[in-house]
Amino acid sequence: MVLGSIPAWEADGELQILLCKRAIEPRRGYWTLPAGFMENNETTEQAAKRETEEEAGANIELQPLFSLLNVPHVHQVHMFYRAKLLDLNYAAGTESLEVKLFAEKDIPWDDLAFPTVSNTLKFFFSDHAKVREGGSYGLHTLDIYKPMRQPEPT
Amino acid sequence: MVLGSIPAWEADGELQILLCKRAIEPRRGYWTLPAGFMENNETTEQAAKRETEEEAGANIELQPLFSLLNVPHVHQVHMFYRAKLLDLNYAAGTESLEVKLFAEKDIPWDDLAFPTVSNTLKFFFSDHAKVREGGSYGLHTLDIYKPMRQPEPT
Repeated sequence: MVLGSIPAWEADGELQILLCKRAIEPRRGYWTLPAGFMENNETTEQAAKRETEEEAGANIELQPLFSLLNVPHVHQVHMFYRAKLLDLNYAAGTESLEVKLFAEKDIPWDDLAFPTVSNTLKFFFSDHAKVREGGSYGLHTLDIYKPMRQPEPT
Repeated sequence: MVLGSIPAWEADGELQILLCKRAIEPRRGYWTLPAGFMENNETTEQAAKRETEEEAGANIELQPLFSLLNVPHVHQVHMFYRAKLLDLNYAAGTESLEVKLFAEKDIPWDDLAFPTVSNTLKFFFSDHAKVREGGSYGLHTLDIYKPMRQPEPT
């Protein structure tokens, strides 16, 4: 089980999401939401919060579960919680080269590390547009069967 | 990860839930929702459906994820999907002594196998009452820290 969060910062009506540039393989140099393997003796929420602190040095308030993505060919289930970034004192952890806030228009879609991340971000921005019109965030589930085949970043 | 379902049968305005009496330890002789360990190469939905077929011989249509329960002291995460029971041709599998439909008032609350099951059923009936008044089912999350300490069934 891989647990992570979608750390959101909203100021002056603009939404930004905190992404980490991976310092480790697989997918070194690509951008990801903070996430990692759940450990024993912790809950899914604790794992999501811990990974966000470890990889992005971010102080967050965890919100409801937002996405559940099955990746059966690698025997993984990825889950992402929505999260409110509490301040801007984030910093790259040892597994990140860089940590940065991105507005939707600036998301490096071609340089995202994993399809679970890109799909979660797509669901998130889609829901966020609905929330602005009085809707609400849902729980999104997706099964990803296709192994990842992408060129190395240039 | 333990995946299961809440197989619901609704007829003449009455809701009934399919429970299985466990034929195996732990908690042999106690009632449970059909559920079991997720296997490699399957999705959470496939696991929930497979376990329901194996333990209860039930034909179901899987509905959205309903509960996610962390049980950190045994290193488990339990998830239950709502499910529509498609017919009454269910039958106990090898891991069940008996499979039976229960209305809410008949649920054997004192003889349920696991707190993840009793809490999921409580959430379910509570939501079902809201659905009858125009509400909707939610996603329920709960962390269960207390190890189970209950007497053997008499």
